[in-house]
Amino acid sequence: MQRTLKQLAEWLGLEFRGEPSLLIEGVSTLEMAGANMVTFLANPKYKDQLPGTRAGAVIISPEVPYERACLISRNPYADFTKVVGLYAPPIPRPAPGIHPLAVVHPEAHLGQDVAIGPFCVVGAKARLGDHTVLTAQVFIGDDTVVGDHCIVYANVVVRERVAIGNRVIIHPGTVIGADGFGFAPVGETYAKIPQIGTVVIEDDVEIGANVTIDRASLGETRLGQGCKIDNLVQIAHNVTIGPLTVIAAQTGISGSSKVGRHVMIGGQAGLSGHLTIGDHAVLGAQAGITRDVPEKQFVSGYPARPHTESMRQLAAVARLPELIKKIQRLEARLQALEEK
Amino acid sequence: MQRTLKQLAEWLGLEFRGEPSLLIEGVSTLEMAGANMVTFLANPKYKDQLPGTRAGAVIISPEVPYERACLISRNPYADFTKVVGLYAPPIPRPAPGIHPLAVVHPEAHLGQDVAIGPFCVVGAKARLGDHTVLTAQVFIGDDTVVGDHCIVYANVVVRERVAIGNRVIIHPGTVIGADGFGFAPVGETYAKIPQIGTVVIEDDVEIGANVTIDRASLGETRLGQGCKIDNLVQIAHNVTIGPLTVIAAQTGISGSSKVGRHVMIGGQAGLSGHLTIGDHAVLGAQAGITRDVPEKQFVSGYPARPHTESMRQLAAVARLPELIKKIQRLEARLQALEEK
Amino acid sequence: MQRTLKQLAEWLGLEFRGEPSLLIEGVSTLEMAGANMVTFLANPKYKDQLPGTRAGAVIISPEVPYERACLISRNPYADFTKVVGLYAPPIPRPAPGIHPLAVVHPEAHLGQDVAIGPFCVVGAKARLGDHTVLTAQVFIGDDTVVGDHCIVYANVVVRERVAIGNRVIIHPGTVIGADGFGFAPVGETYAKIPQIGTVVIEDDVEIGANVTIDRASLGETRLGQGCKIDNLVQIAHNVTIGPLTVIAAQTGISGSSKVGRHVMIGGQAGLSGHLTIGDHAVLGAQAGITRDVPEKQFVSGYPARPHTESMRQLAAVARLPELIKKIQRLEARLQALEEK
Repeated sequence: MQRTLKQLAEWLGLEFRGEPSLLIEGVSTLEMAGANMVTFLANPKYKDQLPGTRAGAVIISPEVPYERACLISRNPYADFTKVVGLYAPPIPRPAPGIHPLAVVHPEAHLGQDVAIGPFCVVGAKARLGDHTVLTAQVFIGDDTVVGDHCIVYANVVVRERVAIGNRVIIHPGTVIGADGFGFAPVGETYAKIPQIGTVVIEDDVEIGANVTIDRASLGETRLGQGCKIDNLVQIAHNVTIGPLTVIAAQTGISGSSKVGRHVMIGGQAGLSGHLTIGDHAVLGAQAGITRDVPEKQFVSGYPARPHTESMRQLAAVARLPELIKKIQRLEARLQALEEK
Repeated sequence: MQRTLKQLAEWLGLEFRGEPSLLIEGVSTLEMAGANMVTFLANPKYKDQLPGTRAGAVIISPEVPYERACLISRNPYADFTKVVGLYAPPIPRPAPGIHPLAVVHPEAHLGQDVAIGPFCVVGAKARLGDHTVLTAQVFIGDDTVVGDHCIVYANVVVRERVAIGNRVIIHPGTVIGADGFGFAPVGETYAKIPQIGTVVIEDDVEIGANVTIDRASLGETRLGQGCKIDNLVQIAHNVTIGPLTVIAAQTGISGSSKVGRHVMIGGQAGLSGHLTIGDHAVLGAQAGITRDVPEKQFVSGYPARPHTESMRQLAAVARLPELIKKIQRLEARLQALEEK
Repeated sequence: MQRTLKQLAEWLGLEFRGEPSLLIEGVSTLEMAGANMVTFLANPKYKDQLPGTRAGAVIISPEVPYERACLISRNPYADFTKVVGLYAPPIPRPAPGIHPLAVVHPEAHLGQDVAIGPFCVVGAKARLGDHTVLTAQVFIGDDTVVGDHCIVYANVVVRERVAIGNRVIIHPGTVIGADGFGFAPVGETYAKIPQIGTVVIEDDVEIGANVTIDRASLGETRLGQGCKIDNLVQIAHNVTIGPLTVIAAQTGISGSSKVGRHVMIGGQAGLSGHLTIGDHAVLGAQAGITRDVPEKQFVSGYPARPHTESMRQLAAVARLPELIKKIQRLEARLQALEEK
């Protein structure tokens, strides 16, 4: 796809400088963009990279001086993101309909324009909403519902009786609805507690690759509207996560914890079970959360404490070897005084 | 399925109070149970929730005063777990036999009532025991043995020459028998060390979703009878794990470590290679285990130490900023004395 | 396969002691090797195990006294690794050609002797090099290139437009080319930033099971020649990793970080985004890397510091409870002096 610089400026509603007929064929970074590509400068601190760029045009804020072709934006990053969407190659998807080598139960219900790729399995009474795509090798269990306009990538497994909303994206290898980890001690051995609950994924959630989201023992595990979950995250049985919460890769949330709305969780964080994390809280990367976190609090470290406290403690620990020497000197001086 | 309160009491062998003909149609939590559901109260500290429940009946211990319909139990949780099993919806499984779109090698050996779902692959000389189920899209390599009454969920991969016992459950996406991570430095590069050993999974083991259990370089990687492994756990080559050990999600165990019997390992713990962890030891969540752990010891922290010591150190660190100020004051006082 | 002790010695170019016609049928450890097996002793500190071995022959260094059958080597481990390769059972692979239950796009291009197992999907304009094997249930997206002599195990997903070099091994369940985790805040919600870049995997890379390697937002995510990646590792969008770097299990590398050449990263380490890790650096297991690491530096702990500093701090923390008591005593002594 090609547009001229002028067409692009009009589409974005931005002023521009430079040759209006310049063909823009794609997007890239300041470093890698070529003569027919557009790039952006969001952070003025990188403006030293401007002279070196070979980009055809730069989306740039009005404060940054730049002589060459540019589109002038109050929010270069947001406008660039729009342009990326414009030039993004289409994501390959199977043709609408059921691939002849997919197995769809005759009692499954498919919406309009559903596309089911090769080697997919769709169980009895499962429902797929309009325009939903299962790319290939996907497993959808009996009675599971997937909403409209969802994309489910290869090798995703969603077991029975799970409910997934609209416009949900699930990346490859993710498992939703496996049994929660529940065992009752019987003497020295363990009896399996049947995990008869389910999982509910609300609208507009995006789930990364090789994530695991377990079904509830009773009731439900729930991800709120608009949550974004990165790769290799573990969400245990009966966890509930509020809307618009963002969880970075390899984090684990133990059973029955309740995470609020618009919480941000860094990578490799771990949460104990039965915790409550308040709305808009921020949990640092690798934090070990062992207690409830009030709303809007930023916690970090192990065990997690308010971040400023955590930083103060780490700074103090860094001074500790020096402190030990100081104490030894104090002791010597004190002894000298005592001996007088 | 429905039973009356009286039938349920008889089936459990418990005394009951309330209308004997009350229909019990399901199980749920105190909070969510409806008028035809049974719930339980295991921990008397939650008894404040009793007045608010709409449950038809509560399984409750004799010490807790409760006027409404109930089943009186010395162990409410264990009895409730039995009832959950009674009301659990059956787990969907493919019809017995081989799905026409599965590929089973003619030299594979299948026991009685084996069920193999669509898009499964079973290799040459593989053996599946009686009543074992491969739900769909499972890979079982050549010469691999799976025992009786096993359930292997979608997208599980078990490579060649692995031995799996009876009544083993393997959740979706798990990989058993991939090559161990073994390389010999050759100058600056690495030569792959062929991983020619195997994996042995004993009876009654349950393995979560997206777990990885590597084959041994020589000999075997082994999980003892009755182990329970949560999601996204990594078990490296030549690790051996004793019977009845429980490992929470995202833990990693490095090569050749030996974990004892009935050990409990918290989530996101990491064990170095070549360690020995004694029977009944407890390793805290996120612990970094760098040394052997004696039997029955509870260790935590990084690097892991006995838990009480670890707690004492963390408490001391929390006091550290205050301590630094105290030392500054001591210094000033000492100086004042010295100047006299 | 069988060889005599003499044949083996000649094949290795080593001197030997013992009966030349002794049949060697396999390899094993000192502990488990039987009378027709060869083993090795690399580390003289384990020489106490020598008298107990039942091995037919031991590969051993000339300094270690040993009366029984042996092959004398300057590098017993390297020579043993060669012998392991000799006796390694062949890894099962599908027959060359396309399995009748695989779906290969007519516009895909396959090299010589390619083997594609059951339930694999190969997309439009994908290219597979000579002798490359997809064992089963593999997904290769449109326009993706896989080089010569690669082995791609079951359930691996490689999405569209990814480039994989020659002699690459990818273990089961790994996902390459899923969307990077990129969202632009729009008020309280998040807009997905299209991830239009790709992933490049250079020659001789080995990637473990259930790994996730995300495609770049723009440009590429790249793994350098000869990298070795263990299981359950997360590599985010736009990360670049230099040649011959080794990454242990469950490590996570955040977006846009640049890891140098021949770096070693321990298990469960976590790296923030936009970092630069110098060549030959070593990052300890469970380290939390929040800053750039200079070349050849060994860092550990959270937040990661030079390892010796980190060790000194941990040692100081261990002394902290005792230190607090010491300060209390100092205080008392000082007060006593002041009161005089």
